[in-house]
Amino acid sequence: MTKRTLGIAVVGLGGAVGTTMVAGIELLKKGSIGTDGLPLAQISVDGMAEYTDIVFGGWDLFSDHLAAAAEEHDVLTHKQFVAAEESLRAIKPWPAAGNDRFLSNIAGTNRLGSTTHRETIAKIVEDIRHFRKTVDSTVVINLASTEKLQAEGNESFNSIVAFERALDENSPEIPPAMLYAYAAISEKVPFGNFTPSVAADIPALIEFAEKQGVPIAGKDGKTGQTFIKSVIAPALRARALKVEGWFSTNILGNRDGLALSNVDSLASKVKTKSSLLDDILGYEVEDHIVDIRYYRPRKDNKEAWDNIDITGFLGQHMQLKVNFLCKDSILAAPLAIEIARCLDLAAQRGEKGIQEQLSVFFKLPMSRSAKPEQAFHRQDEALREWLGR
Amino acid sequence: MTKRTLGIAVVGLGGAVGTTMVAGIELLKKGSIGTDGLPLAQISVDGMAEYTDIVFGGWDLFSDHLAAAAEEHDVLTHKQFVAAEESLRAIKPWPAAGNDRFLSNIAGTNRLGSTTHRETIAKIVEDIRHFRKTVDSTVVINLASTEKLQAEGNESFNSIVAFERALDENSPEIPPAMLYAYAAISEKVPFGNFTPSVAADIPALIEFAEKQGVPIAGKDGKTGQTFIKSVIAPALRARALKVEGWFSTNILGNRDGLALSNVDSLASKVKTKSSLLDDILGYEVEDHIVDIRYYRPRKDNKEAWDNIDITGFLGQHMQLKVNFLCKDSILAAPLAIEIARCLDLAAQRGEKGIQEQLSVFFKLPMSRSAKPEQAFHRQDEALREWLGR
Amino acid sequence: MTKRTLGIAVVGLGGAVGTTMVAGIELLKKGSIGTDGLPLAQISVDGMAEYTDIVFGGWDLFSDHLAAAAEEHDVLTHKQFVAAEESLRAIKPWPAAGNDRFLSNIAGTNRLGSTTHRETIAKIVEDIRHFRKTVDSTVVINLASTEKLQAEGNESFNSIVAFERALDENSPEIPPAMLYAYAAISEKVPFGNFTPSVAADIPALIEFAEKQGVPIAGKDGKTGQTFIKSVIAPALRARALKVEGWFSTNILGNRDGLALSNVDSLASKVKTKSSLLDDILGYEVEDHIVDIRYYRPRKDNKEAWDNIDITGFLGQHMQLKVNFLCKDSILAAPLAIEIARCLDLAAQRGEKGIQEQLSVFFKLPMSRSAKPEQAFHRQDEALREWLGR
Amino acid sequence: MTKRTLGIAVVGLGGAVGTTMVAGIELLKKGSIGTDGLPLAQISVDGMAEYTDIVFGGWDLFSDHLAAAAEEHDVLTHKQFVAAEESLRAIKPWPAAGNDRFLSNIAGTNRLGSTTHRETIAKIVEDIRHFRKTVDSTVVINLASTEKLQAEGNESFNSIVAFERALDENSPEIPPAMLYAYAAISEKVPFGNFTPSVAADIPALIEFAEKQGVPIAGKDGKTGQTFIKSVIAPALRARALKVEGWFSTNILGNRDGLALSNVDSLASKVKTKSSLLDDILGYEVEDHIVDIRYYRPRKDNKEAWDNIDITGFLGQHMQLKVNFLCKDSILAAPLAIEIARCLDLAAQRGEKGIQEQLSVFFKLPMSRSAKPEQAFHRQDEALREWLGR
Repeated sequence: MTKRTLGIAVVGLGGAVGTTMVAGIELLKKGSIGTDGLPLAQISVDGMAEYTDIVFGGWDLFSDHLAAAAEEHDVLTHKQFVAAEESLRAIKPWPAAGNDRFLSNIAGTNRLGSTTHRETIAKIVEDIRHFRKTVDSTVVINLASTEKLQAEGNESFNSIVAFERALDENSPEIPPAMLYAYAAISEKVPFGNFTPSVAADIPALIEFAEKQGVPIAGKDGKTGQTFIKSVIAPALRARALKVEGWFSTNILGNRDGLALSNVDSLASKVKTKSSLLDDILGYEVEDHIVDIRYYRPRKDNKEAWDNIDITGFLGQHMQLKVNFLCKDSILAAPLAIEIARCLDLAAQRGEKGIQEQLSVFFKLPMSRSAKPEQAFHRQDEALREWLGR
Repeated sequence: MTKRTLGIAVVGLGGAVGTTMVAGIELLKKGSIGTDGLPLAQISVDGMAEYTDIVFGGWDLFSDHLAAAAEEHDVLTHKQFVAAEESLRAIKPWPAAGNDRFLSNIAGTNRLGSTTHRETIAKIVEDIRHFRKTVDSTVVINLASTEKLQAEGNESFNSIVAFERALDENSPEIPPAMLYAYAAISEKVPFGNFTPSVAADIPALIEFAEKQGVPIAGKDGKTGQTFIKSVIAPALRARALKVEGWFSTNILGNRDGLALSNVDSLASKVKTKSSLLDDILGYEVEDHIVDIRYYRPRKDNKEAWDNIDITGFLGQHMQLKVNFLCKDSILAAPLAIEIARCLDLAAQRGEKGIQEQLSVFFKLPMSRSAKPEQAFHRQDEALREWLGR
Repeated sequence: MTKRTLGIAVVGLGGAVGTTMVAGIELLKKGSIGTDGLPLAQISVDGMAEYTDIVFGGWDLFSDHLAAAAEEHDVLTHKQFVAAEESLRAIKPWPAAGNDRFLSNIAGTNRLGSTTHRETIAKIVEDIRHFRKTVDSTVVINLASTEKLQAEGNESFNSIVAFERALDENSPEIPPAMLYAYAAISEKVPFGNFTPSVAADIPALIEFAEKQGVPIAGKDGKTGQTFIKSVIAPALRARALKVEGWFSTNILGNRDGLALSNVDSLASKVKTKSSLLDDILGYEVEDHIVDIRYYRPRKDNKEAWDNIDITGFLGQHMQLKVNFLCKDSILAAPLAIEIARCLDLAAQRGEKGIQEQLSVFFKLPMSRSAKPEQAFHRQDEALREWLGR
Repeated sequence: MTKRTLGIAVVGLGGAVGTTMVAGIELLKKGSIGTDGLPLAQISVDGMAEYTDIVFGGWDLFSDHLAAAAEEHDVLTHKQFVAAEESLRAIKPWPAAGNDRFLSNIAGTNRLGSTTHRETIAKIVEDIRHFRKTVDSTVVINLASTEKLQAEGNESFNSIVAFERALDENSPEIPPAMLYAYAAISEKVPFGNFTPSVAADIPALIEFAEKQGVPIAGKDGKTGQTFIKSVIAPALRARALKVEGWFSTNILGNRDGLALSNVDSLASKVKTKSSLLDDILGYEVEDHIVDIRYYRPRKDNKEAWDNIDITGFLGQHMQLKVNFLCKDSILAAPLAIEIARCLDLAAQRGEKGIQEQLSVFFKLPMSRSAKPEQAFHRQDEALREWLGR
């Protein structure tokens, strides 16, 4: 197996997840941490980049170098920060595409000075080309704050022809994440979307990715509560324990929490439609409530509390409660790394379009079918089978 | 598909699980409850008995008819009790084999008046033969209170020849559950063991079952905490979230709780050896603690509290807490019913010896291999595959 | 001590709390329950009515007799329902004052056919006079669904003169609860408000109560989460454990839950202003969040989950989590009974206006001071001292 | 108010609580932490030492300087450790009195080379005298690991005369904590016992303290679960919510946890007798279970899980669950500091013998009465009243 460096260009590099990815790989290179939390660490697949052969670049609306960003996010322990500080200080995010229409809570000023979509795309392409020269292969991963967008019913998103026209017309309907996706795909660089933003999940860009022969994957990293939900729900179904209600509440205090608290209404709409729970169970849970609250004492630590009301034999009621005291970036960063490694592998294997075998990493898996597999264990097996192929 | 009645002869019929089985089938026959909690209700397999074609008989150290037993166990709602009362009143357990050496907390007096193992077996066989005349096929299910027994190292248990000799010699090492297993197997009646008692899980009786062409399955029904454990642990492994410690505590206040509080030391030994958690994870969890406490305010309601300490990316620590407010008999009874239906199906299909495809129902699955599959989702798939065959 | 019957006229008699009060007193009379949950059961005070000397009447927008109401609310066990059924069937709520402007989720049709405030008051007075003839003394307790109302800044509420004028002018600003309060006070009948509705908590009616020499008390019964909050917060202050955040979430599925889900925005405003937590702690908790969600699987059972982030020595962080699986009406009904008994006692003692010694029963205690005592143990001691006087 | 330095001589100085006390005071002196967690920080009492005027000395079976000890205990954050390191390094525990008979899990070798009790006492006295020269006043606080001891029925403990004789005879019944207590009292130095060890809580030493005019206090610091228990139980009583059962389980992984896991049987005996819960409630809770498990993943972090089964109105059942994720030393250290300050104040005020007003700090308050006050809020008020006197 020949060594190959993989360059991950991150949209939102200075965020908590982005800096954690960079710091983690840096500490792995130094040998000061192990591979806990990296799901594919035990698997050796020909052509898949080693963790220690990964390098990072990326865009962010805040221009701080990553050491300053990491200090703000407070995810690393003090010792880890000291060990990674020098390397983090050396990385400064490139100016990013921002649009207040889609993201009103985030006020960064490190912006591409472009005035049209085409100009923005050109600048992103230029960044990618520049970065690409330094590595053997490249992947773009979107970690930027969630954009508010109701994509359905927008004609411009339904075909690449219509989308290109909307770009030409500088349509206000197109958010930054789509520009990044378009730029990456046009450069034949795989694009992974770890956020709930629509990004490449429109017919136009899926069509474009297939035409360009580029693998894409998304969306919305399955890290905490939804991960657990997709683990437990299949077992309740297998045991015929009827879910009468599922109440989920979350508290978190990082920048993502602030952004989410603003897109709440959309988030619930998305949720209702996606119906991960109903798809797994095979029936509709009428009392399925998901709350997300911005609660500062927790910073990047996220706490999820689930209450599941179930009915068993004789129609009798029981309750299952799950309380997950997790760390958002600690769960997310290794998944984003694995997505990048897998997309790179897919590109080498000549696969294109939606990479459905990566569904295990996503809350809202992009899929060719109307009902993508949502049960965690089946998603996980699908991925491992693909890797072993 | 021709209708066929399945007779389930229950060892410990008057216990909480036994009476709940009987009441549940009775209420299903009346149409006053649905099939919630019955894992195989949605599956139609040729040759498998319908729930409404099941009838019950069985042994118990307490002679109360089942209406009195049900009133004591307090599992049924008042309305359910009233609806099932007449049918329950009509069933009176047969005298049972008891041995204070193996079960000191339970003081029932409804005992077989036999003085030797061979005599006890003869009486059990007689009961089975009598019951069998009333139905199309028969299965024996052990639900009796857990026996204290350290089976390993006992030479008499290693071959059917040695075991027969020990029976002849009326060896004090042989507990009642083995006599029931022996009697059933000798009659070519499938034997399922829902308790942690060793029963048929010795080389001698496995050999005997194969020789007689009888399917057997066990042991220890996987109802609450261990069910959840075998669901969550595989997902933690898939996500490479290292389990640093798993602390499980249980409170329950029924007759089983009282019995268990007395076999605690054995229980922990069994647990250590069986190592469900370590088998699933692929490494040893040094801080794996399981406490069971007899706590009367809960009666048959069981509460499990699990605390899982996990390490993720960057070696950072997180906690997953699971609190299951469940009902012991409500979870157990439908599984015991399904085990009986499956064993009956296996017998019709001509299968014999350990029915490993029933592992999903057991905490300590009997297996031909040293490391039986313990991950819930793989056990469940194995069963469904077998059923669909 | 001479026997005296106390008549409690309940606004919202057919609700879950109202029917539970009636059923509870009925079962106490029959001797089939004990006095668990009745805080003053162990205290004997001269002049305070015995539980078994209480009789009920009251108004409700639903005309069902109380047996039908109790069946719907499903608070009683089946056995308790059967035991109380006949007595409950004998009580039918009087037609009630309803106003969709203040309460849009509740659609009852058992309404007073009045067209003006003065007419409504006259009918309520008539009901009170009729009821009063059957008992030695009378108290009115408001248990009706919470009204949406922003009372502050309304000139009509600031003096009894202005309020009388607004009544004369049939002002649309005056909600039903105020009409009940006015009617009771005008009849010199003590008025207790167990709901968050403003009712008598305006300068006009406080002035009126003092002028009439009538004791009044309110508002918002302190049953579950707030009870616990007012118990724990003083202890955290005593230990100098700094509360960085307090996240409270609630799920409940009864009629009150439905009503509350509609007044959510108001509820939070009220909460912010009342600042029970800040008053107890002596500083402002910026991250104090209270969520209430209507979640049907629970019916009248209410679950509260509190997460308290505290900082201790060395500025280190800890968490205290409280999970209260309670029953709304089971907690509320005995408090409403005690409030009625205490108001009746206060009337006999010649006390008038706000009865601040009853603060222990309320989330938002009516008070003569700007900062009423909120710490549970001090409120409780104040009540017991008054009783012992 | 004149400045006065208070010297605290700690038995078990190198333990987690001891090092946390020292580090905390050091960081307060540097101004790098606030007074969170110090219950009396807001109260100014004439004669009570300022936190910043406290200095430390003490004994330990391990000779490591406190920086090494702090590193092992891992209580301080990395930043706090760095800030306090130099000061901690300068403090080295004096050789301690050890006796394997009473404490088998702890293997330190930094031992006083004495062969008799009288010799040990002489050496302790010498240490106290030496330390005393450097400060204005001195207090001894016992923080050493819990000793196994059944004090009741031992005649030598019943009077100072008998105790002196047992010392002379070098009785094997006398554990180290009593020698420290005796030495301190003989030197007229106040003695506070923060551990469950019996120490000064025998008639002999109480008599001695009164004779010498020395204030003493103990025993067993009320930090986590018991603190919460003594806060919630009085409120349940006030609301007449009957406690049917109280199940408490604890996990902790520090040196104290290891020691406790060995004295478990004694601990439960002590608990049963002390009956804090029953004393507060006024009746016996038959199902009161307290488990303590040594669970290494938590180190010094302690987690308590309480489940309280309560019965309310109509005899209906509810549950209150409390989950305290606390830090043992972070809760304990400030209480130990306050105990020292209060004992010093008591000495100045000329008080002697048991200082019952310090009960708020103890699980098993030493008391002149058979039933000491156990309700937290009343204990707290008693202390504040004494302070304000």
